[in-house]
Amino acid sequence: MHKVATDDRGAIGTFFKACEAALGMDRVQALAQDRMAYTDQMGFDATAHEPAGAVAPRSVEELRQVVRLANAHEVALWPVSRGKNFGYGGAAPVLAGSVVVDLSGLKRIHEIDVKRGFCVVEPGVGFYDLYDELARLGHPLWMSVPGNAWGSVAGNALERGKGPQPYGDHGAQICGLEVMLADGSLVRTGTGAMAGSKTWHLSRDTYGPAWDQMFCQSNFGIVTRLGLWLMPAPEATLSMDYALAEPGDLARGVDAIYPLRQRGLIDHDPAWVSYVGIASFVGPRRTWYEGEGLLPEEVGAQIRRQLGIGWWNAQLNFYGHEEVIRAKARVVADALEKALGPRPEPRLWRQGDDFGASHAGIPSTRDMMMIDWYGGRGGHLGFSPILPADGALAQAQFERTRARFEAAGIDYYGAFSVGGRAIISINEILYDRDDVAMAKSVPVLMNRLIEDAAREGYAEYRTHIDAMDRVAATLDYGAREGGPGAMARLNALLKDAIDPNGILAPGKQGIWPARYREGGSARVLRP
Amino acid sequence: MHKVATDDRGAIGTFFKACEAALGMDRVQALAQDRMAYTDQMGFDATAHEPAGAVAPRSVEELRQVVRLANAHEVALWPVSRGKNFGYGGAAPVLAGSVVVDLSGLKRIHEIDVKRGFCVVEPGVGFYDLYDELARLGHPLWMSVPGNAWGSVAGNALERGKGPQPYGDHGAQICGLEVMLADGSLVRTGTGAMAGSKTWHLSRDTYGPAWDQMFCQSNFGIVTRLGLWLMPAPEATLSMDYALAEPGDLARGVDAIYPLRQRGLIDHDPAWVSYVGIASFVGPRRTWYEGEGLLPEEVGAQIRRQLGIGWWNAQLNFYGHEEVIRAKARVVADALEKALGPRPEPRLWRQGDDFGASHAGIPSTRDMMMIDWYGGRGGHLGFSPILPADGALAQAQFERTRARFEAAGIDYYGAFSVGGRAIISINEILYDRDDVAMAKSVPVLMNRLIEDAAREGYAEYRTHIDAMDRVAATLDYGAREGGPGAMARLNALLKDAIDPNGILAPGKQGIWPARYREGGSARVLRP
Repeated sequence: MHKVATDDRGAIGTFFKACEAALGMDRVQALAQDRMAYTDQMGFDATAHEPAGAVAPRSVEELRQVVRLANAHEVALWPVSRGKNFGYGGAAPVLAGSVVVDLSGLKRIHEIDVKRGFCVVEPGVGFYDLYDELARLGHPLWMSVPGNAWGSVAGNALERGKGPQPYGDHGAQICGLEVMLADGSLVRTGTGAMAGSKTWHLSRDTYGPAWDQMFCQSNFGIVTRLGLWLMPAPEATLSMDYALAEPGDLARGVDAIYPLRQRGLIDHDPAWVSYVGIASFVGPRRTWYEGEGLLPEEVGAQIRRQLGIGWWNAQLNFYGHEEVIRAKARVVADALEKALGPRPEPRLWRQGDDFGASHAGIPSTRDMMMIDWYGGRGGHLGFSPILPADGALAQAQFERTRARFEAAGIDYYGAFSVGGRAIISINEILYDRDDVAMAKSVPVLMNRLIEDAAREGYAEYRTHIDAMDRVAATLDYGAREGGPGAMARLNALLKDAIDPNGILAPGKQGIWPARYREGGSARVLRP
Repeated sequence: MHKVATDDRGAIGTFFKACEAALGMDRVQALAQDRMAYTDQMGFDATAHEPAGAVAPRSVEELRQVVRLANAHEVALWPVSRGKNFGYGGAAPVLAGSVVVDLSGLKRIHEIDVKRGFCVVEPGVGFYDLYDELARLGHPLWMSVPGNAWGSVAGNALERGKGPQPYGDHGAQICGLEVMLADGSLVRTGTGAMAGSKTWHLSRDTYGPAWDQMFCQSNFGIVTRLGLWLMPAPEATLSMDYALAEPGDLARGVDAIYPLRQRGLIDHDPAWVSYVGIASFVGPRRTWYEGEGLLPEEVGAQIRRQLGIGWWNAQLNFYGHEEVIRAKARVVADALEKALGPRPEPRLWRQGDDFGASHAGIPSTRDMMMIDWYGGRGGHLGFSPILPADGALAQAQFERTRARFEAAGIDYYGAFSVGGRAIISINEILYDRDDVAMAKSVPVLMNRLIEDAAREGYAEYRTHIDAMDRVAATLDYGAREGGPGAMARLNALLKDAIDPNGILAPGKQGIWPARYREGGSARVLRP
């Protein structure tokens, strides 16, 4: 099923030895326990994506040596920033037998420009690292953070991670990259292409084609430095909570919000989160229910009553000058009154108040509690299609998805993050890895969800390493006689040009270099 | 000086004959007067960029035939949408002897989605065409238009054109392209890579690398369909005019505005426009001054008094719900009071009022009056560097630029479009093409300006076909021993992979396919 790297000639062993000579013994991790450390911590079958080991350069120069050795020995690399891409595969490579390049040692914050509102980070810089630095400066800029914020700022942005803050489309905040190409050379994108550029991280305008987004969800290079726009600290914030009582209310909730978001009256993409998601941050399922099977509806109702939440729940936040956000909140509450009910009591936060609100972009790992929902060694798997901003379509997608979850015996947990024109539907499949039935049903569920979405014309914005080929295959425009689609052909053409030896992250997002396209081998050799 | 296409074997004649057979006689224009029609109407030397002729397909299928014939006969194509890229070369190719592919016949508006706020256009759709269609629908969406709006909506966005409206960064509004590659195949970007995608023009999130910006200012493909986000019609607008009396006031003007823009309190990038620019929209220079040489300072003062304007002038516009924009305007006026003086009388527009305000995005060609400034056959040439949002740096750039203009005997005309993090400085060099001295001094001035900017670390966001190689050469990061920079090497690598015969717009933005890189020939053969 899964491709694995071929190593008939013991090339990986030679490669590791050369890396040890170049970087030092302690930078190469190729023992069995090392390999396990870089597998998908939430996968059912660790061997499916088991790497051959890892190397951990401490500098761009050391990374260059790793890349050159990989070319020389034709070794597949799988670069990770901090390896916390959980729900989508963690640190593990698509191609078993690849060598993880662990960039967590490159953790320099090159710059924080308070006036111009951006930071420049290396891949190893975590959300907590950046937060600490911003806190030291008195929070002149606010971060946007994903639900579980233990990962890399750069890595999350490059995977197009999301947060609920105004700058919450993290990939869209990227401005100016330094990238190591497969030949070990560095390129700087945007106006950074000029030595001594003064606007590298200030402007996405540039001269000629722009390449920042070529390196997102990509195996075209290894990003060594990333410029990211940050939000100027607002004078105040204002929050309003809305809840919808019934599962069938999602359509109404979406249609009420997206036009306001499109008009700029709401400052971020609010998410309608299903109640199981919120409950899973409070405690494991056994808190409310000790039985088997799906959570009974009456227990669900009890949970909602107890937590004071609806079936769907959204927080609307406003950021900025108090007079302006009060005006926005009034207009929004008026517009929502008919669809969502009376104006909730708004919560105001002002500069000088305690800096503790979740919508302020404070890193947290609280959301990871969700993996304990079923008990045992928990895990979660993300299914994340993009939908049009349209209530009826969102409702239908929810119902289709929920039915699939329930047929698989899994409690439904989904969030619909509502933008002005599109919705990202993030569904978390929660499970107990020690549950044999779940280990069987979850992969089947995932496949059904991908098929369902493709039938409706919805692509995923991101997926687990297990599903990367499958999701790539849904991009079928221009496919000829069952062959790859036009986008896959373009990606392959560019991949072969930019990485002729196919050393960079083979199979990432379904993009395989030439050497792996005609069927991979069936074996991994351990060094 | 200029490269020209080689045609030792009469290939272009054969190509034109084949195009006539495929598309019809009337779709091929290769007579001397046809060639002149596609030269740079504002250039001093029409022959420098004279095409071999033009072909004008009426459909994507006809375009495919042109592309296939160009490959077969190894003919260089120069695709233009409507050919109105004036100030940057109009319809003319970089490489003399190229064949212009005039796409103005592909003028279908595929879709206007009023609820989701976007349109989908073919390259021949002009701003007036789209405006007419939106007017027919009752202006539910507003356009952003450049100063001279006779061009193509798609072409302008692909060249990263700018307008003063909230959606004024036209390249940034692109979402979802259909592109013909050099082999005649079509690819659809973003989620359009899925056949039957429902979110092609709704989301820039996609699976894998994103390619919209690969086709901006690019010769990697021919865009045949372009999705562009449009602004939902605001309930009201509010405008405030500011003026600064002295040339030295620019720094203050910039530093006052960019933080407000960054914080979202101002809904667009306001531009500080120098008074000569505004005067040039009112009448030619002889309206005020019949003499030779630079406009005397006392005449400038008289013009400013007469027109009631400052040396620098900016309009701030607010778009949206009246309560919200009134709040924003109050906060902004308060913040600007210290730097820019007392609150100007705001002008309010409400839905139902006459739809005539310039900030509403109504296409116009009034700005083109500027080319009559000196009389004779006028012209203008754009010099457009990107600067940091920083008053002192903007002031220094202005003074350097003005001194260069004046040393060349040209009245200074510049606008600084202030974003939250960067400034686009658009300088219009106005001239009389019949003036022999200007014909000599303008190209020298342009070179000086490019050199000056590069020395400061400022890249251009766009340039004239004459200067494309020169600007590309300023992108010198990673250059080895005087060779091309890292970005030029990457562009060349990708260009050769995607267009192996080098048929698409050789030399555009300084990107040359392999066959032209080792020195072009010295001759153009006419058919």
